[in-house]
Amino acid sequence: MSSVREVKVATEVPGPQSKAEAEKLGSFFDNRAFYFVADYDKSEGNYIVDVDGNQYLDVYSQIASIPVGYNNPTLTKAAQSREMISALVNRPALGNFPSSHWHDSLKNGLLKVAPEGCDKIFTAQSGSEANELAFKAAFMLYRRKQRGEGVEWSDHEVSSFANSFHGRGFGSLSATRSKAVHKLDIPSFNWPQAPFPALKYPLDKFAAENAAEEKRCLDKVEELITTWQFPVAGLIVEPIQSEGGDNHASPAFFQGLRDITQKHNVTMIVDEVQTGFGATGKFWGHQHWNLTSPPDIVTFSKKAQTAGYYFGNPRLVPDKAYRQFNTWIGDPARVLMSKAVVEEILARDLVSQTARVGVALYSELERLATKYPQLVRNLRGKGQGTYIAFDTTDPASLVKKMKSLGVNIGTCGTQTVRLRPMLIFEEAHIPFLISALDKALGSA
Amino acid sequence: MSSVREVKVATEVPGPQSKAEAEKLGSFFDNRAFYFVADYDKSEGNYIVDVDGNQYLDVYSQIASIPVGYNNPTLTKAAQSREMISALVNRPALGNFPSSHWHDSLKNGLLKVAPEGCDKIFTAQSGSEANELAFKAAFMLYRRKQRGEGVEWSDHEVSSFANSFHGRGFGSLSATRSKAVHKLDIPSFNWPQAPFPALKYPLDKFAAENAAEEKRCLDKVEELITTWQFPVAGLIVEPIQSEGGDNHASPAFFQGLRDITQKHNVTMIVDEVQTGFGATGKFWGHQHWNLTSPPDIVTFSKKAQTAGYYFGNPRLVPDKAYRQFNTWIGDPARVLMSKAVVEEILARDLVSQTARVGVALYSELERLATKYPQLVRNLRGKGQGTYIAFDTTDPASLVKKMKSLGVNIGTCGTQTVRLRPMLIFEEAHIPFLISALDKALGSA
Repeated sequence: MSSVREVKVATEVPGPQSKAEAEKLGSFFDNRAFYFVADYDKSEGNYIVDVDGNQYLDVYSQIASIPVGYNNPTLTKAAQSREMISALVNRPALGNFPSSHWHDSLKNGLLKVAPEGCDKIFTAQSGSEANELAFKAAFMLYRRKQRGEGVEWSDHEVSSFANSFHGRGFGSLSATRSKAVHKLDIPSFNWPQAPFPALKYPLDKFAAENAAEEKRCLDKVEELITTWQFPVAGLIVEPIQSEGGDNHASPAFFQGLRDITQKHNVTMIVDEVQTGFGATGKFWGHQHWNLTSPPDIVTFSKKAQTAGYYFGNPRLVPDKAYRQFNTWIGDPARVLMSKAVVEEILARDLVSQTARVGVALYSELERLATKYPQLVRNLRGKGQGTYIAFDTTDPASLVKKMKSLGVNIGTCGTQTVRLRPMLIFEEAHIPFLISALDKALGSA
Repeated sequence: MSSVREVKVATEVPGPQSKAEAEKLGSFFDNRAFYFVADYDKSEGNYIVDVDGNQYLDVYSQIASIPVGYNNPTLTKAAQSREMISALVNRPALGNFPSSHWHDSLKNGLLKVAPEGCDKIFTAQSGSEANELAFKAAFMLYRRKQRGEGVEWSDHEVSSFANSFHGRGFGSLSATRSKAVHKLDIPSFNWPQAPFPALKYPLDKFAAENAAEEKRCLDKVEELITTWQFPVAGLIVEPIQSEGGDNHASPAFFQGLRDITQKHNVTMIVDEVQTGFGATGKFWGHQHWNLTSPPDIVTFSKKAQTAGYYFGNPRLVPDKAYRQFNTWIGDPARVLMSKAVVEEILARDLVSQTARVGVALYSELERLATKYPQLVRNLRGKGQGTYIAFDTTDPASLVKKMKSLGVNIGTCGTQTVRLRPMLIFEEAHIPFLISALDKALGSA
């Protein structure tokens, strides 16, 4: 059976049904960011259907969070399992009374795909929470090393990068440096912010300049760590800055970060909330770097369908019970879903598929970049699976036009269109996507 | 069919199977706070069973979070529904692409039990997240009122009370004032902390002193609000300080807080994470107060089986979309479970039952307090459903002894045993609980 489905958009977007539903919801739920109201019962694979019957090829995937397609049969089976019903009905306080199924859920799910060197896990419910828990682990480790040396307990910080997005809690938001709207009016810790390399494209044309730019940023990171008014306990970095505009850096840059963090005893946290679970053509984005030693902590969410952090160093477990703790410590129902996601990804070798399809997709986009040099600029993500993006003049209208042509696609940063297809996106889906983009760009 | 089940503890607690399972889990998951590993398939109603086959009457209920019993049939039905399977398999970004079922899930679930005057909702995944979102809403509202008046955006604060517990994120933890272990080593905002009344028991004996104590605290709250170095945007308070030791205050005290917050334009956030959903004999703890105007925000989690906040003032919705936002905005699967919880509570009138059973339970505990005046002190929670607690000399050993006698019961604060039965706890369960307590206290 072909996974390619006919796409049909018969109304304006959002259509009248979507608008009516949105208005109903608006009486008690903020509806201002709605694109449309979806009919998930009719959605399937790479295709999302709205309540007006419009169908879209979905390369936005619920803000990069649908891993293996709508109504995926493996996931449906997991959702119907006896273990799932129990996890939903008998929600435990996992730190006090874990279920007899908990070992299997983790061991044969999230632990099966643990990043090398990170064989332990703390489970959570969102990317923000995962990052905040990682910060707390880093702080507690820092003080564990320093205890007795007279360092005041609150005097340590997490460094992050300009344009980074690490979530919206008070701690994760303090590290977030993307759009102003994310931070406006919200009190924030005064934590250091390092510059993230601004690479020039195409990469092969600007090799020397880009190397110099990365060195500048690394020097600045080291300077911040050594001169900041308080000790820097942790450094958090995304493999690709996603909300900030799909900003990439080279493996050498990340190896440089690893060297600096080790030299200065700083916990290196890799935020794989958006890059993890295969979309870059490797299971974890940081696997592209060939680090000489693993990151201290790797956080995840989105396509994992649950959240948490992996780590290796047992000293990242605080010295006493209940210091890293909360009532639910994640959700076993969502961990069961992640187990099914892992099964599906591994059984169908979807990471390799994504790497392969990404190559074909990238070269089609290169063709469009040549055809529309003003409208498709700084194409990036080569060799990063389907994690591809480009800059354009008016991303919001382009994306709106794409919806009317039957493609659900998203933006990031201020001038960027980002592709976030699911891992089940195939070569067969490329022609429609490219032809819609061609039409949309041609009429811009 | 009787809901009373035979209780049997045949091993030490934790038993050998629990220990073996805990050790297996310990290789990748922090197991130091495990009491035992549970067999939820065999657990039912008020009874939890562990992997050694031990059975316990559960009056701790997963840190006060199981609402209507293990393997509740109404919840099981919801877990098997078509809507649930879709919510699990097709997890949406609710702010962008809500499902066509979303309106019904909220309208016929959480909105059905919305506190009076709070008819709008923002959904979340944990109590910490709910409180942080509430803080953000309060901050944005504050600045919305002040904008243009030259107040620097980070210069505003949330006030909370000594001994309060509002969660473990960086913002919610800043407001949390219970045990030191919760906060140690974690950077925190310097937000004001007000004293919470320390009432003396029995209440009728100390009426005048307690009224004076409450007045002292109210005066201090007003002083903090008017003299703090930065404007105070919000005030958060639990109806009963739960993690902090089950500390109560009178309706007059809370009405005083409402008057002060209104007078000084401070958003009043009532944290009903633990008190909400019926356990105090009213659906919301704050319904005991007969406030002259509703709280601005009410947060919930735990027994709701999902989380979020209710509010009434439309200006608590920030002026622009995406300011209060995240990828998932809660979990529709858990919201469906909360709908089933609401159905079950309303259909069986479990809040009235809890109020009624609480009266009987309290008078049995009064009897024990008379029998063991040194070991059952400051009995509190009269007229608060089954939300009852007392101070004792060595709560940890008492709770341990209770487990060996077949009762799972918890502590809070530093010297308190708290009762947190589910809403399905009946008069028929009281004799076994009281007789076990009698035995445990008698052998102390």
